[in-house]
Amino acid sequence: MRKVLIIGAGRSSSSLVKYLLEKSDVENLKIIIVDIVLENAQKLAKNHINATIFELDIFDIDSRKAVIMNSDIVISMLPARFHIEVAKDCVEYRKSLVTASYVSKELMALNKEVVAKGLIFMNEIGVDPGIDHMSAMQVIDRIKNQGGKMILFESFTGGLVAPESDNNLWNYKFTWNPRNVVLAGQGGVAKFIQEGKYKYIPYHKLFRRTELLTIKDYGKFEAMANRDSLKYREIYGLEDVLTMYRGTIRRVGFTRAWNVFVQLGMTDDSFIMEGSENMSYRDFTNSFLAYSLHDSVELKLRHYLKIDQDDTLWSKLIELDIFNADKKIGLKDATPAQMLQQILLKSWTLDKDDKDMIVMYHKFGYELDGKKKQIESNMVVIGEDQAYTAMAKTVGLPVAIAAIKILNGEIKTPGVQLPIRKEVYEPILKELENYGIHFKEKEVPYLGYNSFNFGA
Amino acid sequence: MRKVLIIGAGRSSSSLVKYLLEKSDVENLKIIIVDIVLENAQKLAKNHINATIFELDIFDIDSRKAVIMNSDIVISMLPARFHIEVAKDCVEYRKSLVTASYVSKELMALNKEVVAKGLIFMNEIGVDPGIDHMSAMQVIDRIKNQGGKMILFESFTGGLVAPESDNNLWNYKFTWNPRNVVLAGQGGVAKFIQEGKYKYIPYHKLFRRTELLTIKDYGKFEAMANRDSLKYREIYGLEDVLTMYRGTIRRVGFTRAWNVFVQLGMTDDSFIMEGSENMSYRDFTNSFLAYSLHDSVELKLRHYLKIDQDDTLWSKLIELDIFNADKKIGLKDATPAQMLQQILLKSWTLDKDDKDMIVMYHKFGYELDGKKKQIESNMVVIGEDQAYTAMAKTVGLPVAIAAIKILNGEIKTPGVQLPIRKEVYEPILKELENYGIHFKEKEVPYLGYNSFNFGA
Repeated sequence: MRKVLIIGAGRSSSSLVKYLLEKSDVENLKIIIVDIVLENAQKLAKNHINATIFELDIFDIDSRKAVIMNSDIVISMLPARFHIEVAKDCVEYRKSLVTASYVSKELMALNKEVVAKGLIFMNEIGVDPGIDHMSAMQVIDRIKNQGGKMILFESFTGGLVAPESDNNLWNYKFTWNPRNVVLAGQGGVAKFIQEGKYKYIPYHKLFRRTELLTIKDYGKFEAMANRDSLKYREIYGLEDVLTMYRGTIRRVGFTRAWNVFVQLGMTDDSFIMEGSENMSYRDFTNSFLAYSLHDSVELKLRHYLKIDQDDTLWSKLIELDIFNADKKIGLKDATPAQMLQQILLKSWTLDKDDKDMIVMYHKFGYELDGKKKQIESNMVVIGEDQAYTAMAKTVGLPVAIAAIKILNGEIKTPGVQLPIRKEVYEPILKELENYGIHFKEKEVPYLGYNSFNFGA
Repeated sequence: MRKVLIIGAGRSSSSLVKYLLEKSDVENLKIIIVDIVLENAQKLAKNHINATIFELDIFDIDSRKAVIMNSDIVISMLPARFHIEVAKDCVEYRKSLVTASYVSKELMALNKEVVAKGLIFMNEIGVDPGIDHMSAMQVIDRIKNQGGKMILFESFTGGLVAPESDNNLWNYKFTWNPRNVVLAGQGGVAKFIQEGKYKYIPYHKLFRRTELLTIKDYGKFEAMANRDSLKYREIYGLEDVLTMYRGTIRRVGFTRAWNVFVQLGMTDDSFIMEGSENMSYRDFTNSFLAYSLHDSVELKLRHYLKIDQDDTLWSKLIELDIFNADKKIGLKDATPAQMLQQILLKSWTLDKDDKDMIVMYHKFGYELDGKKKQIESNMVVIGEDQAYTAMAKTVGLPVAIAAIKILNGEIKTPGVQLPIRKEVYEPILKELENYGIHFKEKEVPYLGYNSFNFGA
């Protein structure tokens, strides 16, 4: 039996393990699941006959090297910063490696050795990054093969709550790391290119410069720009493209309300608030408003940010109870971002039966035979339950499929890489369709960059 | 003769040197002026019989040590980061030291040795920091000596253009380092306390949360919060004060218009703009606005920031010519902040005959005999010309006076210190009055923190 080693059995490994175990007989696989908490591995293995589990602290070098040496391929589901140690062992013991994380410089530096040894280190093969790369490259390559010239590429992804579980005014719940949601967009200007012009959006305007999208049967969405829209320009072979924009999807109305937190300064993670442990929700809100002996926190906020009392945005704030003087946040020495996260967790935590949803949307503009054309494609995946979420499926399945295809020699080009080659994306996207992960594609009139394009 | 060593003969040393030379006969002083550019020292010394000049690179350790060893007191007018080397030599050769800069941790760490050797290292004795400390402590000590209890302290300073030279719509010209003006307020939240409540203003709101001030004969001003309002709470002995706010003064209307640059992202210094060397003023402005095939840059900006066409703010933008498509900025690999600075320099550079102005304003609230009282004091200094600016006078004179008083043993408490002791501020403020630097003080009804207080 071929031994597939999975390091890290957290929530995002559920669908990955399930898929591999389902394929274990026909593919002749032994699935070795290791985690620093044995129970995590146990939960996923479910006593399957082809599963073996170990407790492993990856900083215990001898044990780590032993399990890697004793495997045929390695899947690292560790936090991204830990991949490099695993990767070095993989080079040493000549094992291929699959991760869903952004490829780091350190990892890329191993490329020469990886190629020399004929290994495949496949990275960014989750959902975003991952399915976005594959689904985009499939269309881009097709357009180029037809003799088309790419002029526009826009790509949007979002992790949201499924429509059937969508019961708050924000149309949003935390379906992944809440801290990343609160800090989204921070750390530098958002940069992209529109019709040949470089454009820059500072953080405090990011949530007011959104794009609108419509997906049949799912309604309207909005997207705010990522910081790194141009990151894949060369990797995708889109050096000459006039418009390139990547963004994060929310339901319409989310960013307009989130902007209130940004404007107030509640998403700031750079300083500790005085007396945070004793602050009520109302105190927290009031910290960002001018002092007044007579005016209410409510009126001060409305006046400061010019919010009408009958604005739907106001109802969103009320729903979060941010003016409650009795509820304590209860965090000591906390930053505003940590305080806000705590408030949001009370409202945006998934209920036991809630399902999540992953939405992806691409726009491809191109010239063919002197005509401008546009293709739009989208993917919507709904989670099964809280174990097999849309997030876990869309992250884990491409990883699992890639591992098997590498083992089977179907994916064979060696090197530290992303899934942008036809050899990789074609078979994986095909297999993903069997699991309900597929793109709907349509031709639309070429619109170019048009802020009034509702995706219609 | 007693030898006063001045290291650094830049523009802010002009009044300092002039004062010391004027006093050199009666005080029996030899003024030794050293600079890395001999010409700078020459310009200030003006061949005065009591002046000696040298070229000195402070990184030439032997020469530096030699001039310090051969002096009776040292004044360092170097950029703040270079003081520490001079200070260590001063400890070694037992010389007292005067600087106008914020006292650094490294400098403070020398305190024990400085005290042991009976030396005085006087820092923050320019204008801001400097005259602000002295003038505040004089009133605070007086209130406390009367048995009063301080409950409010607000303090504002600004370097502006003098009314007679004030001929642009912004009522502003660069009277000190333009880069610091462009970056003002960045680097962290502004934090202060109002009526016992901690308040926080994020950078992108800083220019919309201002205080208004009126100074008799000079009209209305506004002030935005400094980042460090609470920095001197303990140093001033104001631990229990309910309101403490420090700010930077501009003419009314400046911050509202400056906010346009902040909102657009033009003050960002964290990234290089693509193709900056070929950008016109208009291109630069357009980089921060959404792409549109049909709409003008002007209309896009007005719409984005909701500016009426007859708003005075709009005229300020037009005055800077930020929509000019023919004027190139001409900076390669520049950040937005550098590009903006370049545009502003065209409009805000002082003309040959222009004068500058320093404005300072304090509010002191206190309780005495069960009654709440308030004192307000202000200082306005107008520069003589572009050599003897208000900035050079208010920075240099306190430094010069302190040096003589230390030499004469009038200031005698040893240690690394700020000018917050009566022994220091009393004689220096008195001498400053002879040079037109004086505070006008008045009692006003106690207002506490009241945003509608126009200083009336």
